[in-house]
Amino acid sequence: MQDEREVVVLRLGHRPGRDDRMTTHVGLTARALGADRVVLPANAGQSLETVRDITARFGGPFTAELDDEPKATIRDFAGVVVHLTMYGERVQDVGEAVRAAHRESSLLVVVGGEKVPFEVYDRADFNVAVTNQPHSEVAGLAVFLDRLFAGRELDREWTNADRVVLPEDTGKTVVPADDAED
Amino acid sequence: MQDEREVVVLRLGHRPGRDDRMTTHVGLTARALGADRVVLPANAGQSLETVRDITARFGGPFTAELDDEPKATIRDFAGVVVHLTMYGERVQDVGEAVRAAHRESSLLVVVGGEKVPFEVYDRADFNVAVTNQPHSEVAGLAVFLDRLFAGRELDREWTNADRVVLPEDTGKTVVPADDAED
Repeated sequence: MQDEREVVVLRLGHRPGRDDRMTTHVGLTARALGADRVVLPANAGQSLETVRDITARFGGPFTAELDDEPKATIRDFAGVVVHLTMYGERVQDVGEAVRAAHRESSLLVVVGGEKVPFEVYDRADFNVAVTNQPHSEVAGLAVFLDRLFAGRELDREWTNADRVVLPEDTGKTVVPADDAED
Repeated sequence: MQDEREVVVLRLGHRPGRDDRMTTHVGLTARALGADRVVLPANAGQSLETVRDITARFGGPFTAELDDEPKATIRDFAGVVVHLTMYGERVQDVGEAVRAAHRESSLLVVVGGEKVPFEVYDRADFNVAVTNQPHSEVAGLAVFLDRLFAGRELDREWTNADRVVLPEDTGKTVVPADDAED
């Protein structure tokens, strides 16, 4: 997020067709909840386009890119690697250590699909579980980011937006971004 | 969650095939993050089976059911209705009011798909946005529940589990539930 060390979300594994929406939701959740960048598998071009399209319309800064060597990206990341997994340490136990690490270093948050190779568990500085229950990698990422930023991400500013949603108690109001600044 | 007023998650709208995984993830996220019950559309029988199967293996209490009259369920709910939508009031602004309402009443949390009818916005006691950005209904539900329960859901106990994941810094360890109690 602006004025903080970079947080990058890396989606590991993608089966075109079957995983399109999950991968897209990982990318959009990363953007909405304060990450700076999402790295998607090389075969997830459709998700990439959706995330870029949303960023063009609703603002950034946020970057989406494809990566055909994600294992190398994880291995060589110059910072702290967090792997979200239901087998990991409880987020309520290690969250503070992760926040402390993020004050010093960039963070790579790895969101796996099925069958994450053991080398990822091994490389990760933190294997973190948002509950040790099977649920959703999107849900886990969302709770992890909200806790990492302690809610600050909800108040972030968006630049270069084309349109803005006005929060309201009943209704659906979207206005051009220029009007929202008045 | 145990010892609290009931929290029910209702998934509104489901296109078989296309929405199967999203609806399943809504159900599993509801279970993992402290809701008592999920109500799925009548045509989401496959998601229902998955959620029940996970509950049988990893424990409860948690109930999943189908509903062929979800609009009536929302309209007639004897408690407070929260509708999660990117057009709603900001969760950081209304979260405390929702928590206060939950101390007095059961809560129905409506998670829409595309094109939620206006009567849902109108019936809802709170239309709540986890960011006013387009992202994922699963992510929105996850952050909403974590904030509703203020993290207590992460420490909940599971009963009648068949197996338990042991949190650890590296590795994947699942043991029979009987062993975990020793």
